[in-house]
Amino acid sequence: MLLGTATGQWRTIGLRLLATNMHATSNGPSPKRSLGLADVVALESSIASVDGTRGELVIRGYAIDDLARETSFEEVAYLLWHGALPGRRELRELCEYLRAERTLSPMVLDVLRLTPEDASPMAAVRTSVSALAHFDAEADDMSREANYRKAIRLTARIPTVIAAFDRIRKGKEPIAPSNAGSTAENFLYMLTGKEPGPSAKQALDAALVLHTEHGLNASTFTARVIGATLADIYSAITGAIGALKGPLHGGANIKVMQMLLEIDRSRDDPSEYVRKRLAAGERIMGFGHRVYRTIDPRAKVLRSMLEALGEEHDNHTWATYCDHLVKTMASEKGIAPNVDFYSAPVYYLLGIDPDLYTPLFVMSRITGWTAHLLEQWTNNRLIRPRASYIGPHNLRVPPITTRSGLIA
Amino acid sequence: MLLGTATGQWRTIGLRLLATNMHATSNGPSPKRSLGLADVVALESSIASVDGTRGELVIRGYAIDDLARETSFEEVAYLLWHGALPGRRELRELCEYLRAERTLSPMVLDVLRLTPEDASPMAAVRTSVSALAHFDAEADDMSREANYRKAIRLTARIPTVIAAFDRIRKGKEPIAPSNAGSTAENFLYMLTGKEPGPSAKQALDAALVLHTEHGLNASTFTARVIGATLADIYSAITGAIGALKGPLHGGANIKVMQMLLEIDRSRDDPSEYVRKRLAAGERIMGFGHRVYRTIDPRAKVLRSMLEALGEEHDNHTWATYCDHLVKTMASEKGIAPNVDFYSAPVYYLLGIDPDLYTPLFVMSRITGWTAHLLEQWTNNRLIRPRASYIGPHNLRVPPITTRSGLIA
Repeated sequence: MLLGTATGQWRTIGLRLLATNMHATSNGPSPKRSLGLADVVALESSIASVDGTRGELVIRGYAIDDLARETSFEEVAYLLWHGALPGRRELRELCEYLRAERTLSPMVLDVLRLTPEDASPMAAVRTSVSALAHFDAEADDMSREANYRKAIRLTARIPTVIAAFDRIRKGKEPIAPSNAGSTAENFLYMLTGKEPGPSAKQALDAALVLHTEHGLNASTFTARVIGATLADIYSAITGAIGALKGPLHGGANIKVMQMLLEIDRSRDDPSEYVRKRLAAGERIMGFGHRVYRTIDPRAKVLRSMLEALGEEHDNHTWATYCDHLVKTMASEKGIAPNVDFYSAPVYYLLGIDPDLYTPLFVMSRITGWTAHLLEQWTNNRLIRPRASYIGPHNLRVPPITTRSGLIA
Repeated sequence: MLLGTATGQWRTIGLRLLATNMHATSNGPSPKRSLGLADVVALESSIASVDGTRGELVIRGYAIDDLARETSFEEVAYLLWHGALPGRRELRELCEYLRAERTLSPMVLDVLRLTPEDASPMAAVRTSVSALAHFDAEADDMSREANYRKAIRLTARIPTVIAAFDRIRKGKEPIAPSNAGSTAENFLYMLTGKEPGPSAKQALDAALVLHTEHGLNASTFTARVIGATLADIYSAITGAIGALKGPLHGGANIKVMQMLLEIDRSRDDPSEYVRKRLAAGERIMGFGHRVYRTIDPRAKVLRSMLEALGEEHDNHTWATYCDHLVKTMASEKGIAPNVDFYSAPVYYLLGIDPDLYTPLFVMSRITGWTAHLLEQWTNNRLIRPRASYIGPHNLRVPPITTRSGLIA
């Protein structure tokens, strides 16, 4: 940008070599080099294992699909935090604690009321979660016990934040949380004011289980980098929400839903739609995965939820479209659907606006993020890699009148 | 925590070995291992070079002490963003833009009014900066031009946020920013309602220059990790503020000031105070540096500012205490003062409350953080290391009635 002239360019390359040498000389042996860090193990964790080749996501030793079929979101939250599934008493105690902590401070509701109705929902969640700290007397207590209580409080309150945001932006009054029911059930109630049906409750509960944790992805890594400075849990989670807001991380299921809605509007045959887009060199959203080379283990569970939910709502459109897309993508490209592919129509049938899908991800992943923070803090170590400096050296500040005044 | 029994412990170690083997088998050659990443180069940057052995901090080729003596905060901001020092015209344009963007949306002021007076100032800044996004129509525009404008807006508004927070918590009305003067001058005006003297302006300006940038520290790394997901600048900066809130990163100068105030109250001889604390095995704050093995190049500049400011305020107490402490630490431990040692009494003489010292750091470092984000986005790559899974494998979900119900 600045080195438009050939002379400038050469000068910089010379300095770059010099800088590299100086670095090596003055700081001992050359450090390892791994731009983007993809092949570096930065920490040890006993929380989750992702094996892309086998298509396995294991949480604390349990396969994610077993957990989604046989346990609830609250049980998995307990598993993430404690390392073992709860017995009946522990589960009851956790659920009671979660229910008791759902209510927001009126000031946090006021912060939501000050948020413009067209604000990015993820930005609104980021601001509100940051504001929750102001009304938590334990916000800066770094004891393990206090951090565990804050993990529970965040898990209890984030659904209330999301539902209140959605109602306020639609000009409706927020609905106070119920002090009964599961996280999934209460969320649907706060969002719609209606008691959800059994398949709806079960589908959202399974979707929450499936999104709780996925190893050291960018948002979880962000939470641990922030937490490693011994910043409080609200700082770490606010940062993680920011990372999840990035389109390279969260948000793929919004695009899946846009595609399904486009197919529905166009009245195209879904298989034809896929072939046309592939022929045009376009990407079909919700297929393949950066990590999973075979099938995303989370997709299967959601497929059956979509079926049951379609039954309950007497609406089989989305399941039918999905089946066509899956079949065509298998024959045309040989790739399988991922978790985003099925979460999109499941959330849509639950009456949740597409721009809330990433906030819903937050509502689930808060359990994984906080489990990673509790783990980080049991044996903390700053996480801070190095940068290799490739800029100039030994410049002297010229008087302002003699500066060339380059602009990028 | 969970593995109280000897059997459990052995079982886990066995599984750990198994996990390591499986990892190596299923994912090809072992990845590099660097817990905490201290010896890994994660990215290339042409922004800053820190050479601890030589005691050098170089920004875009210029020594930090030269910049602090010969340029202003606004010039260094321009240097960070563009890679070259501004000419007169560019500097005038930047200053005009900064002045025009200082005013906060009334809603952000309302968010500050909803913040309890005893809230952590860093938490308040984190929430307010996150809320600034809601009132920036370009918040999610990821073009380089829009991101540059947002970097300027953040740099212009963060001082207003900090000053307004401080006034509101003291029961005073916030003072609207002036549309004249430097960032340093206007901040002191908004904080106190009075025009600062020439040494005060100059001292704060130099302190701002000295804190603009320091390579890939934990908060800057956080900003880049979040930005690398292509999340917006407000998300990345909110996360960076969270990281800086951590006591392992920001906040050392608050402790320096507490020490100086303690010396003042005790009427102890400062040299005696140091010797007593060292004899008791305690640490003296503001000396030595994780990176600098010789002298922190930023300390020298602030030392002369403290002198001039003492002259202007006719108060030489702090400079005298500092001189004694430096002399005693040199003879007793052979270590030199760092930037935090002198910024503490400088800020104190400027009438800034100690708990605002880390927010002041934000007010300056926002330029470095945003320069790193602009650099990250010119050639973006996700930053995501791996975790080594050391937990169990192949567990089956037991019925809840048979679970042992362990609690941490």
